[in-house]
Amino acid sequence: MSPPLRINAGRLNDTLQETCTQWGALAAPSTGMCRLTLSPEDQETRDWLVSECKALGCEVQIDQMGNIFAIRPGTAKDKKPIGMGSHMDTQPAGGRYDGILGVQAALEVLRVLNENNISTHCPIALIDWTNEEGARFPGAMMASGVWSTKSSTSLEGCWDTQDKEGMRMQHALQEIGYLGSTPCDYRENGLEAHFELHIEQGPLLERASKSVGVVTSVQGMKWFNIRVTGIEGHSGTTPMPDRSDAMVTASRLITAVRDTALKTELGVATVGVVNSDTSSQATIPAGVDFIIDIRCSTDDMVESLATAIFDAFKPIIAEEANGTAYEITRSWGLPESKFHKHCIETVRASALEEVGEDQVMDMLSRAGHDSAWTSRVCPTSMIFVPSKDGISHNPHEYTSPEHCALGAQILLNAVLRYDEQVKTGAY
Amino acid sequence: MSPPLRINAGRLNDTLQETCTQWGALAAPSTGMCRLTLSPEDQETRDWLVSECKALGCEVQIDQMGNIFAIRPGTAKDKKPIGMGSHMDTQPAGGRYDGILGVQAALEVLRVLNENNISTHCPIALIDWTNEEGARFPGAMMASGVWSTKSSTSLEGCWDTQDKEGMRMQHALQEIGYLGSTPCDYRENGLEAHFELHIEQGPLLERASKSVGVVTSVQGMKWFNIRVTGIEGHSGTTPMPDRSDAMVTASRLITAVRDTALKTELGVATVGVVNSDTSSQATIPAGVDFIIDIRCSTDDMVESLATAIFDAFKPIIAEEANGTAYEITRSWGLPESKFHKHCIETVRASALEEVGEDQVMDMLSRAGHDSAWTSRVCPTSMIFVPSKDGISHNPHEYTSPEHCALGAQILLNAVLRYDEQVKTGAY
Repeated sequence: MSPPLRINAGRLNDTLQETCTQWGALAAPSTGMCRLTLSPEDQETRDWLVSECKALGCEVQIDQMGNIFAIRPGTAKDKKPIGMGSHMDTQPAGGRYDGILGVQAALEVLRVLNENNISTHCPIALIDWTNEEGARFPGAMMASGVWSTKSSTSLEGCWDTQDKEGMRMQHALQEIGYLGSTPCDYRENGLEAHFELHIEQGPLLERASKSVGVVTSVQGMKWFNIRVTGIEGHSGTTPMPDRSDAMVTASRLITAVRDTALKTELGVATVGVVNSDTSSQATIPAGVDFIIDIRCSTDDMVESLATAIFDAFKPIIAEEANGTAYEITRSWGLPESKFHKHCIETVRASALEEVGEDQVMDMLSRAGHDSAWTSRVCPTSMIFVPSKDGISHNPHEYTSPEHCALGAQILLNAVLRYDEQVKTGAY
Repeated sequence: MSPPLRINAGRLNDTLQETCTQWGALAAPSTGMCRLTLSPEDQETRDWLVSECKALGCEVQIDQMGNIFAIRPGTAKDKKPIGMGSHMDTQPAGGRYDGILGVQAALEVLRVLNENNISTHCPIALIDWTNEEGARFPGAMMASGVWSTKSSTSLEGCWDTQDKEGMRMQHALQEIGYLGSTPCDYRENGLEAHFELHIEQGPLLERASKSVGVVTSVQGMKWFNIRVTGIEGHSGTTPMPDRSDAMVTASRLITAVRDTALKTELGVATVGVVNSDTSSQATIPAGVDFIIDIRCSTDDMVESLATAIFDAFKPIIAEEANGTAYEITRSWGLPESKFHKHCIETVRASALEEVGEDQVMDMLSRAGHDSAWTSRVCPTSMIFVPSKDGISHNPHEYTSPEHCALGAQILLNAVLRYDEQVKTGAY
């Protein structure tokens, strides 16, 4: 192998911090971000990214879901690109690392390859996946799901999704100039492999005093919409024993979700969103909606936990029987994703080039990622670096500059290593 | 006494139904209403009301809170008007009777007085009180509170109140042309007495098979804003035992509110509104807000129930101690209101003119009303008519045409009877 290339840690971290400060930063001193997908801030970030990649000689393709593929040519004529993908959008009150680090690291890799005049066998692609967060247009990992053709929501279904203001996603793509013509379909715009550097978003690496997670799978997850219905009434005049109070029943069910997850130890279950039918303090609401997010290591455990939760609902509904009922709709699910042996090996070897074995551990991802979808149609793995206190989806999200740089270096190593294996015909 | 005047039941009910159908009706076949205060629908209703009253020879004054005083002159030069007040605004999904019946009945009284060329001693005023519901601009019975000068919120405070879209109430009054110049202050624009016909909004008259409630008081009420704070986190990556989940804690507190009210039997306590800090299903929210509405027959019982509820919160917070906390802000309160002996007598006698003693009962109001505020500065009482199944603040709210007409007739009787007593110097 040629002498090892080094990423420029200062440039990586400066570029990451400067672009976050410029586009979507929450008011200082917070280092939080609000860069909702396809917002003006997202557009500016995209425009900058496209211009940087073009300056590096990449061919930039925008697909029908606004995914950006910036492709640095390789020498082989018959090879698809090796992808380095993640996302630049954030939660409404998110941090600077979730997704953003993966794309910034990919850009740094492209810069290093250019500076060193490296010719790769396969083309190398940076990918910015649209709407990973699902925070503006409901449906996380939406555009990588369409690209994989394995998501239950079609291209047209995603285009029809509306944000809170009722804007259709297709229109939002058009408005910021990112409704591209490249098919959003891996069969027409495919990848040789997909690598993603991401922060862990959990406390496990930090607790184990490790620097790198070699991600072998993504846990399964399902979301359920629950609607509880009771009978609307006046808060002053409806006697307590006569009430059929959807709010109280929903509250008891939300408590049961947590208690069941804690007791069964099958995985995690969360209610993050609740909405009452009325905005009046003086009205017993007729209906309350909430969403349960269930995640477990395997699909079977997801099913078991969901069953245990809905079993726990039954006695509560029986007790609140005075006209209260509930219905369940499954809104979304991502089956357990097992990553590819070759990509896992590549990431592990690339990490061990940089740090000792005591610093590296295999792990599964407890959050969903675009890589969960890519893994269904091309060899995929991920590199995790530690999140301070395990905090994510929060302005306090933090990963040290050293860990950001280490992750980017491993991403560079992995891409070159995988390319070498393809060239030699091993993969 | 002169031969008894009769209200025109057909005209009253037709006018009520037609104006509801025209301005603010929910889509048929619902007979529900959404006529939020100072909305375009409210404006059209007001414009119609003002024009009807002017056609009857009334002098119409609009005060600084948009309250409409339509005054039919009396013969005495030194007397303030005897008021017949209620409100034309509704909840976002309310009915056709709550408030609306009281104003429509007052209009019918004015029509009957005119048709019969009746000269009263005191002027007789129809009053449409602004924002009784507090559904658009938070703060129920807002404008009668300002008029009474006994509310904790000043005129300027009310003007500064904003709706969900951030529009200031003063601006909303201006926009629909109802920011008047008459002082909103009983000392400058006072009443001799205030009578209000209203639906019961509860099941007690119906259960007792009575037609008329003579209202002797309004129960005390207080609203508390509760904010529960935990630690935000990712729904997939934060282990269950590590969580400080504001949603689960809030749910347990909401359940405790209901359980405490049920157990202590001191009164009613309701949570109608809940809001989570985040709109992401994938985030454990850092904070959840909800409002508790407590109502009891006496102020002491309100205090006792509030104390019992907050005592019940303590062990829950101790159990959820993992960083969860809560704070309480008192947002609003209406102390118990005792109505005036003379007005109560007048309503009772007026009811007994129409129906037998077995059809009439004294009762307290479990809902707040503008009369609660007027009672603090002028003799006041209310007439209740039955609500089908006790339902109110709901599109299914219903009071029969017969009961609407009976209530209007008693209102007419009461106004004439009170006027006679003032004329003779008895009151």
